[in-house]
Amino acid sequence: MNAHIKNVEYAVRGELAIKAEALRDQLNKTNSLPFKTIVNCNIGNPQQLQQKPITFFRQVASLCDNPDLLLSENRHIVSQLYPEDALQRAEVLLEHIGSVGAYSHSQGIPHIRENVAKFIAERDGYAADPENIYLTQGASAGVQSILSILVKDKSTGILIPTPQYPLYSATLSLLDATPVPYLLDESQDWSLNVTDLETSVSTARANGTDVRALVIINPGNPTGQCLSEENMREIIEFCYTQQIVLLADEVYQTNIYEPEARPFHSFKKVLMSMDSIFHDLELVSFHSISKGMIGECGRRGGYFEAHAIDPEVMSQIYKIASVSLCPNVHGQILVDLMCQPPKQGDPSFEKYSQEIGSIYSSLRRRSRKLEACFNSLEGVTCNPAYGAMYLFPQIRLPAKAIADAEAHGKAADNFYCLEMLDATGVCVVPGSGFGQKEGTWHFRSTFLPPEDLFDDFCENLTNFHKQFMNKYRD
Amino acid sequence: MNAHIKNVEYAVRGELAIKAEALRDQLNKTNSLPFKTIVNCNIGNPQQLQQKPITFFRQVASLCDNPDLLLSENRHIVSQLYPEDALQRAEVLLEHIGSVGAYSHSQGIPHIRENVAKFIAERDGYAADPENIYLTQGASAGVQSILSILVKDKSTGILIPTPQYPLYSATLSLLDATPVPYLLDESQDWSLNVTDLETSVSTARANGTDVRALVIINPGNPTGQCLSEENMREIIEFCYTQQIVLLADEVYQTNIYEPEARPFHSFKKVLMSMDSIFHDLELVSFHSISKGMIGECGRRGGYFEAHAIDPEVMSQIYKIASVSLCPNVHGQILVDLMCQPPKQGDPSFEKYSQEIGSIYSSLRRRSRKLEACFNSLEGVTCNPAYGAMYLFPQIRLPAKAIADAEAHGKAADNFYCLEMLDATGVCVVPGSGFGQKEGTWHFRSTFLPPEDLFDDFCENLTNFHKQFMNKYRD
Repeated sequence: MNAHIKNVEYAVRGELAIKAEALRDQLNKTNSLPFKTIVNCNIGNPQQLQQKPITFFRQVASLCDNPDLLLSENRHIVSQLYPEDALQRAEVLLEHIGSVGAYSHSQGIPHIRENVAKFIAERDGYAADPENIYLTQGASAGVQSILSILVKDKSTGILIPTPQYPLYSATLSLLDATPVPYLLDESQDWSLNVTDLETSVSTARANGTDVRALVIINPGNPTGQCLSEENMREIIEFCYTQQIVLLADEVYQTNIYEPEARPFHSFKKVLMSMDSIFHDLELVSFHSISKGMIGECGRRGGYFEAHAIDPEVMSQIYKIASVSLCPNVHGQILVDLMCQPPKQGDPSFEKYSQEIGSIYSSLRRRSRKLEACFNSLEGVTCNPAYGAMYLFPQIRLPAKAIADAEAHGKAADNFYCLEMLDATGVCVVPGSGFGQKEGTWHFRSTFLPPEDLFDDFCENLTNFHKQFMNKYRD
Repeated sequence: MNAHIKNVEYAVRGELAIKAEALRDQLNKTNSLPFKTIVNCNIGNPQQLQQKPITFFRQVASLCDNPDLLLSENRHIVSQLYPEDALQRAEVLLEHIGSVGAYSHSQGIPHIRENVAKFIAERDGYAADPENIYLTQGASAGVQSILSILVKDKSTGILIPTPQYPLYSATLSLLDATPVPYLLDESQDWSLNVTDLETSVSTARANGTDVRALVIINPGNPTGQCLSEENMREIIEFCYTQQIVLLADEVYQTNIYEPEARPFHSFKKVLMSMDSIFHDLELVSFHSISKGMIGECGRRGGYFEAHAIDPEVMSQIYKIASVSLCPNVHGQILVDLMCQPPKQGDPSFEKYSQEIGSIYSSLRRRSRKLEACFNSLEGVTCNPAYGAMYLFPQIRLPAKAIADAEAHGKAADNFYCLEMLDATGVCVVPGSGFGQKEGTWHFRSTFLPPEDLFDDFCENLTNFHKQFMNKYRD
């Protein structure tokens, strides 16, 4: 068997998640557990936790699936169920797609890539070329393709943050490449220090590692930080000087909870606003339909924009995309809708805005409520989430808990999270699944449980934590 | 850059397909070409060539996308557009899925895996376990996962047919594994000779290659053969004796055009009908929603069944699936519908049967018509397609054509196919993209162009071939 696969770790769906599934099965059969339901806070999966899909998006998607609804003989019935702009959008899409059941262009449907390019241009104020855009099955598939192309062998190093979303470490294990970790500074709201980056690179290079790319997740996962424009400029200069490809995971770009103090800037925009010598920097930016206020995770849709990438590499990217034939067309359609939602004056605009606005403000409220909850717990500190969907509190555990965990062959944070799951049904992910500074313990929790259950959710966590601390108090 | 990626070749979407795209763009701008449209016979993509989707499948899919249609207040309108069984099926699916926008279980939705297991049990007469079934993004993604787990390094050998569907050679290049080719016998309807297999294995093993798996595509792609039960038993005995994992690509299992003389048997069924000592043989069988009479390629759905696979390997398969989170839910829904279509007595049964039957008989007619066309051409011979969607004629080219091709740095079959594209707009794939016996030339063409255009299509090919032969006649 492939030995690299044995080394892969992916805690988001690891031991805790598998145990949570088993407990859910048990709950369905008996009522013998101290909680009524499993709450999956291990993964950013909003629609699993009752977040409603955006009506307009689903209307268009369903019309594309069933084009009989667009036939003129059905129009008088269908127009009682669908607004005019949904019907029109589906017609335009089908004109370009043909059938959603056909393989599309391997790079993604040209019309949809044009709409992505328009979206990027409107967002950044700088043009984007549809030829540089690849539609993908979620951002994950894009990240995996790009890493597989950048990695030559074990000698290739890729800079990844600590803590990081484990897609990166898992993919590097699979490719047998060398992760080169750099630390995010918890005491400075998880900011990124370019001096530390330089140290990581020079140490790795001194050890013979060919450092080729830097992964930045902004807004951060699991950390929720949102980089300042100034910090981004430093990073771009660093990559340019060091001849390092910048991989910008920007899937949480609309999950921004302090838009005045900590707005989102895309790396593409910051790059283009700098002196033109920097415009040659190789940059790949990833986006997804799974996050934001959309949360269409199950469709597996996303895109990446490849900026200033070597043409030879671009042709290899195309070839690799073509072996998998094409990204699924349903995901592509949602990318189109995400990039070109209803506009002011369209029949669906008001409903669309109201839905997006209500999900957004609820996420913001929940993020703050959970942050306050965590900060109220003994031995726990938690930075705010300026962006994304997660909090990553630090937990200072009693020595007895750490010793007991060791006796069970578990990392202390894993031990804590397993006890939390057993006591409350809440499934989170131990910090060790993301990487953390030596000697510290964390966990990642989404703040996605439904708002009407949120007070209970916080109360359960608080009670569990008190009991845990009392049980293991030295 | 990853050097293995440079070695990857995938002719189905290679030079010919890229040139065809460019010609299509040119056609859209000017009318300066000797044909009116590009006909993509390079890929089994039925809905691109006007094959209609199955109505019931699309109805259920659209209801799952837009669950507002299932609300009781809409029911009086919606029931004018949807039959009762489509509404019920969507309700059952959503009860199990929740939202199609949520990530599902990494292995696929449990309810759908149960329906796949029932389908397999009904097809074969032997039970299947939903725990052994993985839903995938098309069969290709399943093949890629399984190969990535089986391959250790360059020393791992995988037996693949010549000619073969280039997904296999491309994936092995990517994984830097060693393809161990075995020849299909064109003079015997592309049958598989176990003695040749044994020679391939012993030669490879003598060279230090650790031969771990045998890929069989049945019904064959590009060759259209359909294995006899007796031949399959020999293959199973061979794999068992040689301790080789059998990978059965059975995506064309319902594209069977001589069901009396050459019926489809699944490897799982044949294996289970043999002495129980063979039941331990490790077998992975792949299926897809992209082929058959369904042709829902764009949705990227499929499954594999892993039979008697080592539990340690199974847990690695799960882990790898979990890094990509889940197969897209729309593809999963179509797998459910493919495995459990309307039954006799259901409101949609008659329409469903009529649609499937009409696509099937049309495919059969077109397969025979194209076979006859090819066999009528000077220097061309073509075996019938007992299964799948392709013909793979052998073309005997004049020496002058071969010399001209060489002068242009092209393989002779590639040269022929490029001239065909330039003259007719028909895009096929040269035999060299699949592998062929040294000194022979072939191409693969689907027989998917719409039936009302089929006579024109055959006439264009015939005229082109005559002109080509006259131009290069010695």
